Amino acid sequence: MTRKVYNFSAGPAMLPEEVLLQAQAELLDWEQTGMSIMEYGHRTEKFQEMIDRCEADLRELMSIPTDYHVLFIPGGATAQFAMVPINLFGTKASADYIDSGIWSKRAIVEAKRYGDIKVAATLTKKDGLTSIPPEAEWQLNKEACYVHYTPNETIEGIEFDWTPCTDGVPLVADMSSTILSRPVDVSKYGIIYAGAQKNVGQAGITLVIIHRDLLKSAPLPRTPTLYQYQTHAENHSLYNTPPTFSWYITGLMLAWMKRHGGVAKFYEINKRKAGKLYHCIDSMPDFYHSNVHPSCRSLMNVPFSIKDDAKNDIFLEEAQKIGLENLKGHRLAGALRASIYNAMPEAGIDKLVSFMTDFAKKHG
Amino acid sequence: MTRKVYNFSAGPAMLPEEVLLQAQAELLDWEQTGMSIMEYGHRTEKFQEMIDRCEADLRELMSIPTDYHVLFIPGGATAQFAMVPINLFGTKASADYIDSGIWSKRAIVEAKRYGDIKVAATLTKKDGLTSIPPEAEWQLNKEACYVHYTPNETIEGIEFDWTPCTDGVPLVADMSSTILSRPVDVSKYGIIYAGAQKNVGQAGITLVIIHRDLLKSAPLPRTPTLYQYQTHAENHSLYNTPPTFSWYITGLMLAWMKRHGGVAKFYEINKRKAGKLYHCIDSMPDFYHSNVHPSCRSLMNVPFSIKDDAKNDIFLEEAQKIGLENLKGHRLAGALRASIYNAMPEAGIDKLVSFMTDFAKKHG
Repeated sequence: MTRKVYNFSAGPAMLPEEVLLQAQAELLDWEQTGMSIMEYGHRTEKFQEMIDRCEADLRELMSIPTDYHVLFIPGGATAQFAMVPINLFGTKASADYIDSGIWSKRAIVEAKRYGDIKVAATLTKKDGLTSIPPEAEWQLNKEACYVHYTPNETIEGIEFDWTPCTDGVPLVADMSSTILSRPVDVSKYGIIYAGAQKNVGQAGITLVIIHRDLLKSAPLPRTPTLYQYQTHAENHSLYNTPPTFSWYITGLMLAWMKRHGGVAKFYEINKRKAGKLYHCIDSMPDFYHSNVHPSCRSLMNVPFSIKDDAKNDIFLEEAQKIGLENLKGHRLAGALRASIYNAMPEAGIDKLVSFMTDFAKKHG
Repeated sequence: MTRKVYNFSAGPAMLPEEVLLQAQAELLDWEQTGMSIMEYGHRTEKFQEMIDRCEADLRELMSIPTDYHVLFIPGGATAQFAMVPINLFGTKASADYIDSGIWSKRAIVEAKRYGDIKVAATLTKKDGLTSIPPEAEWQLNKEACYVHYTPNETIEGIEFDWTPCTDGVPLVADMSSTILSRPVDVSKYGIIYAGAQKNVGQAGITLVIIHRDLLKSAPLPRTPTLYQYQTHAENHSLYNTPPTFSWYITGLMLAWMKRHGGVAKFYEINKRKAGKLYHCIDSMPDFYHSNVHPSCRSLMNVPFSIKDDAKNDIFLEEAQKIGLENLKGHRLAGALRASIYNAMPEAGIDKLVSFMTDFAKKHG
């Protein structure tokens, strides 16, 4: 690590130094073409090779079965909040949503514009700890077009470490903040989507993994051409000029993950990284606090608070002085948060834990 | 110029070396933050300063009146093909389109999905030369919600050097391939939109300059939130995570244009660059040919052919050998084409003209 800061932002998030160095080195001359990848045509053989490699790497890393399409679409996860209902609602136009936090709620608000949305489960709070209700308590509707959930909530720091069983109803997941951080059985899903700017690149491109059967239903009338999954599937995500540089960075991220051991390895590291941080919080219960039940604490986003609120600002100030950046909680949640995606080196966690320990001693 | 190739691609297009060198230099450490701009939060003060500067520079370069909003939206011009009718159609749902080539046609096909589209004029062909019909011959409908045209067609190499007068009906222009290449009186337009990857950055972001009165009408029912201009206007293009790096590159491009004399200066250079190339073609009429009437030849895209078609491949091969890249015509048009946006140095034109002269001598 030659960089001077560790960036704990929830997204756009830290990128691996190796990826940035490669992008920097070839920024004016991509693979001996004499051109920047930013200047490179998306309908060329060489660009096609790059995106083929990108898709193949994603398929390998996630063991994506062959009956799934992989699409690369602009507009962020927010575009998917609309695309999912628009494309999956047939004449029924109803779906179940699990409300596990602010990102789920955003998806619900958008989906309600297109049909009948039922909230099948919401977070529960007991003894001051938030948790996901067990699936036995969910009010699922067998006639729903799909069930939507958010396996990781960046703001609340809530994560599912299990996959819901929806009994044949297609399961749709917004994996923006958890994709590639842990193994997932893709075959259990109808659609997995993820904005790239947390675990798999930079803002501007969204990955959509969709079972081919879900491309069969006609989208709602007058759906913009670019909001139809079919458009992107038929044209291999090249219906119009794609966000080429974002796609390239995603490709570099996937290659980096492969070089460093793939999803299983990152999962192991992620558990260790998050474990160290939660241990630090829990070991100083008079000073720090996490309000998430241990059964559903996120490996990616660790919100916490200092019991004495007044110390937040000085915490942030002192952290920043030693290169620990963006530890402020989300503007809708407050307090503190460390987002620790795949690209956050374990050394960054160690430095944060050491700082938190010293800070508690000094200010406790 | 230290680069080894001149890239004549129609888009994604060549970027100025200065812009690429700056992006490269600060790729791991943007403005002494210790972070890459790709890792930088879009809701931070510093990012806001950057995008404010970007908008201010665009306003200054184009003299955009204060009653226009400037929006930065993902999805390319293709998204605008849908957003324009979706947002501007009220209960009338009718519009006039000028068909001046393949990009106009694409806009027309998409618009037809949402309402009643009339083609008010199409290109004419006389003595083998294509031209834009005079406005007196256009069949404009005073009740139309808007008139849409494409001031520059990259494939045909057709450009308007005048602005249509639509008698109070809002004028909408797809300026993707001409924005900032010549002075434009923005006050004559209802909407100007432009994908960035030709004259103002790299793929992934689209500029929309829209008169505030056009934000008043309600979009069609069930329009995705991100397809409503109002969403982007109200949230200053930050409703969700924007394509931050593309936005940054657009900012660098605008600053570069300002440093080098602004639109008037580039217009002067563009006329000289295109003039040299057309002169080269016209001065060897037995060898090269342009089928566009001199009154509407594009300053940005110069399609041409070799009278003996069989020589195209060897032309492309020899050109590439000396670093003149991407001179092949569009897959729908064939033959040859030199796209010479703002970022193409005059030295690139000189090298191309010299090559074409030699090639004609050698193969004529």
